[in-house]
Amino acid sequence: MQSVYIAGRWRDADAVGTYRALRPATGEASEVQYPVSGWSDCDRALDAACEAVVRLESCESGALADFLDAYATRINSHAVPIAESAARETALPYKPRLLDVELPRTTGQLREAASAARMHAWRLPTIDERAGLASGFGPLGPVVVFGPNNFPLAFNSVAGGDFAAAIAAGNPVIAKAHPDHPDTTRLLAELAAEAAEELGLPGGLVQVLWGLENGTGLRLVSDPRVGAIGFTGSRAAGLALKRAADEAGAPFYAEMSSVNPVFFLQGALARRGTDIAEQFADSVLLGAGQFCTCPNIGVLPAGPLGERFMEGIADRFRMAPPATLLSDRVAAGVDDACKRLVNAGAAVVCGGSPADAPRSAYRPTLLRVEAERFLADPLALQTEGFGPLALAVVAAEPRDWARIAEAIEGSLTGSVYFGAAEDDELRDALSRTLRRRVGRLLHNKMPTGVAVSPAMNHGGPFPATSHPGFTAVGLPASMRRFAKLDCYDNVDPIRRPVWLR
Amino acid sequence: MQSVYIAGRWRDADAVGTYRALRPATGEASEVQYPVSGWSDCDRALDAACEAVVRLESCESGALADFLDAYATRINSHAVPIAESAARETALPYKPRLLDVELPRTTGQLREAASAARMHAWRLPTIDERAGLASGFGPLGPVVVFGPNNFPLAFNSVAGGDFAAAIAAGNPVIAKAHPDHPDTTRLLAELAAEAAEELGLPGGLVQVLWGLENGTGLRLVSDPRVGAIGFTGSRAAGLALKRAADEAGAPFYAEMSSVNPVFFLQGALARRGTDIAEQFADSVLLGAGQFCTCPNIGVLPAGPLGERFMEGIADRFRMAPPATLLSDRVAAGVDDACKRLVNAGAAVVCGGSPADAPRSAYRPTLLRVEAERFLADPLALQTEGFGPLALAVVAAEPRDWARIAEAIEGSLTGSVYFGAAEDDELRDALSRTLRRRVGRLLHNKMPTGVAVSPAMNHGGPFPATSHPGFTAVGLPASMRRFAKLDCYDNVDPIRRPVWLR
Repeated sequence: MQSVYIAGRWRDADAVGTYRALRPATGEASEVQYPVSGWSDCDRALDAACEAVVRLESCESGALADFLDAYATRINSHAVPIAESAARETALPYKPRLLDVELPRTTGQLREAASAARMHAWRLPTIDERAGLASGFGPLGPVVVFGPNNFPLAFNSVAGGDFAAAIAAGNPVIAKAHPDHPDTTRLLAELAAEAAEELGLPGGLVQVLWGLENGTGLRLVSDPRVGAIGFTGSRAAGLALKRAADEAGAPFYAEMSSVNPVFFLQGALARRGTDIAEQFADSVLLGAGQFCTCPNIGVLPAGPLGERFMEGIADRFRMAPPATLLSDRVAAGVDDACKRLVNAGAAVVCGGSPADAPRSAYRPTLLRVEAERFLADPLALQTEGFGPLALAVVAAEPRDWARIAEAIEGSLTGSVYFGAAEDDELRDALSRTLRRRVGRLLHNKMPTGVAVSPAMNHGGPFPATSHPGFTAVGLPASMRRFAKLDCYDNVDPIRRPVWLR
Repeated sequence: MQSVYIAGRWRDADAVGTYRALRPATGEASEVQYPVSGWSDCDRALDAACEAVVRLESCESGALADFLDAYATRINSHAVPIAESAARETALPYKPRLLDVELPRTTGQLREAASAARMHAWRLPTIDERAGLASGFGPLGPVVVFGPNNFPLAFNSVAGGDFAAAIAAGNPVIAKAHPDHPDTTRLLAELAAEAAEELGLPGGLVQVLWGLENGTGLRLVSDPRVGAIGFTGSRAAGLALKRAADEAGAPFYAEMSSVNPVFFLQGALARRGTDIAEQFADSVLLGAGQFCTCPNIGVLPAGPLGERFMEGIADRFRMAPPATLLSDRVAAGVDDACKRLVNAGAAVVCGGSPADAPRSAYRPTLLRVEAERFLADPLALQTEGFGPLALAVVAAEPRDWARIAEAIEGSLTGSVYFGAAEDDELRDALSRTLRRRVGRLLHNKMPTGVAVSPAMNHGGPFPATSHPGFTAVGLPASMRRFAKLDCYDNVDPIRRPVWLR
């Protein structure tokens, strides 16, 4: 059985159970068995993380940045086995997706985080010498990271965006591996451990657990030793953990679910309908729809233009081979979402069923619903199908557009496609409403493809995330999630941190 | 009965009850009767606030800043009746405290917020033209503000720091008046209403409710129309409201309780013991101890030096006349805290009883406890006595100092007094530990006196506040509590807000 990495060494887990990951393309189980940890592993990891917090206070200022760079270098030199492992475990394409896109993105994030840590600008240092005050952001303590299934590298709990941001802000990380890709997480964790050891960093800086029973996870996030939690995953798991963390008073940053509505105005479809139908279908099918920013809802005009547009999407969906999904659970989840949408009044246009067992796959699925029906039960009809599924909402009445936009739950993104002067008024009205509902507002662009840029916001109002003021992608802003505002009052400058002198 | 101010006009409340405020110096009831609002008042206010959100989108960029300035001017020209009313309702000194300190501070905050709103720098605008991305902070929707009893002006729900920050960030405010000073709140609300009307701002921009039953308050903060909540008050009320807001996913910024420990090292007492005893006593007694930053705990060395120091504090406490407290509830709360501390093992050195009924007063109270006892039940012995009360913790063993610091709950402030080279090591160790426990670390300075400066942090780890990354005092940082991160992707610069072009 795989050991856990706690307090700077690989040791036998206090296992209350075990699991093997199933390879989604074949249904085979992984060779290695992974432990589900009992509380004593968490307890020991928390103690080691607290010790690391203390030891980091006397580390040199650039030590964590050096670690992030060294780790990125190691990942680069093991790129092939890591991407191969991730491909085996997720069925995502080895090339270009994993090897050429996601892996460089992951090392890029680590290096960017290192550079942000060195610069200190992220701390927003503010000095008022006349008042004897100096303040800025510092670390807040051990950060627990729960990574998602859909980015085995760039959001991995021990290598991804939350990990990089938490470490760069000066905090130790306790990583909870996603059970769908433990082999990949193990390869990464080994490199992180080597890099940390080589640089003489505290053993509690990076720690890895493979599995937790639900109750243990809740206890972990509500432990007073925890500084904050980063979570990317399902709404159900996110809300349960959030409740526990909220009760304990620890900041809980969750990215949970999002339908990412796209509004297609008349003028856009009249001029570029065929092209936009392809864009939408491609965006829904990218990564087999397993993106947080997958557009699950398209709003379009009633009438021949809208019908032709929908047919264009359906055609492309029908032609696309059902891609292998991340796991059986994902396939079951899409099927469940599809049934719930049908129960709420949507009709299946194409797809709507699993494909090709034993591999985990689902047919690209388009559903439709009339605006009136959508507005009668907007929450049920915003059920997120995490996978290749989209709902077309057909709006006949002009006033329906605005009402649909008003009914959208907090979402990561919202898009408006427009193409002619006659669209201007509706574009502006929808943009204003969506601005309040979403973190990122797009014009004439699909929401998939989250550029790693300081100006990115991969966040949004609840329930897309747990706080509308923070982003999970985009340095240095993402680091401020894992930070505490520190003020020094009448403290001699030489006793303040270097960046506040 | 006083009317409520909803949707731009004074109207009869949907009253489910009424109250009169008691004047703490005499026990007399106020002339005006104030309504406790039922849900329909909240519902109407929320609708009007949402309408205001929409209308504000097309207001000129400087309109809210103009409002804040105009409001400050009106407060200034009514300074005398406002300060007189506040003095009557709180028993705080009319002069200098209310008229010369708190009122100018209040108008200063409003003007500073206006200036921050005009500058846009608080939004942290970030533009990446190559990626077509632009982002920064914008408003997040209606903000509900619950003000505390102890700052009838500077933290007033319709004029104080949370109000100014929320409006300056572009949000409407629903102010819930503190029931201990409704007359003062009414005077302020009338001026706010006049200023908003004169400038033609939406009626839902500023709204005022006088009282809410507990269940109605919980329903209000968990309503999906609410963007965020600012709360200053007791831990019990704060935690109950926080739970409701957390469940609904709305950011809840609470400043709840804090014992503000002060560590007095040997060398400081040897050189300046008499002076520091006076400083500590004065800090505890300032505002009759009714400050969030009142130092409720002093840690001092066992032996003659510490005993003499304690005697110095007790002497000053005994000489001080018992000041009138904000209300009977405050006096009862101090008495309750005193009893709980005694039950947990502390001994009363002086004070420990109410004084001079019918006015609400309590004798300045010093308690003491040995370190060993403190460490056996540190949570009970950190019971906050909101009033003129302090606990001296006597540390004999060198290692006790560090253990006491480690046992401190999240607090707004932590202070270390030192005076000789022999203190250096302990000063540094305590400072490092306190750094993790408190928002503002002080050296050789008492924590009362919260300078209004951009470098101030009036915040701290849970349970002092509900999020360690934010401050309630200090513009523009305090505005970012009431903000949402807004990103524009592929949006033509002319369709972005002016500050992102």
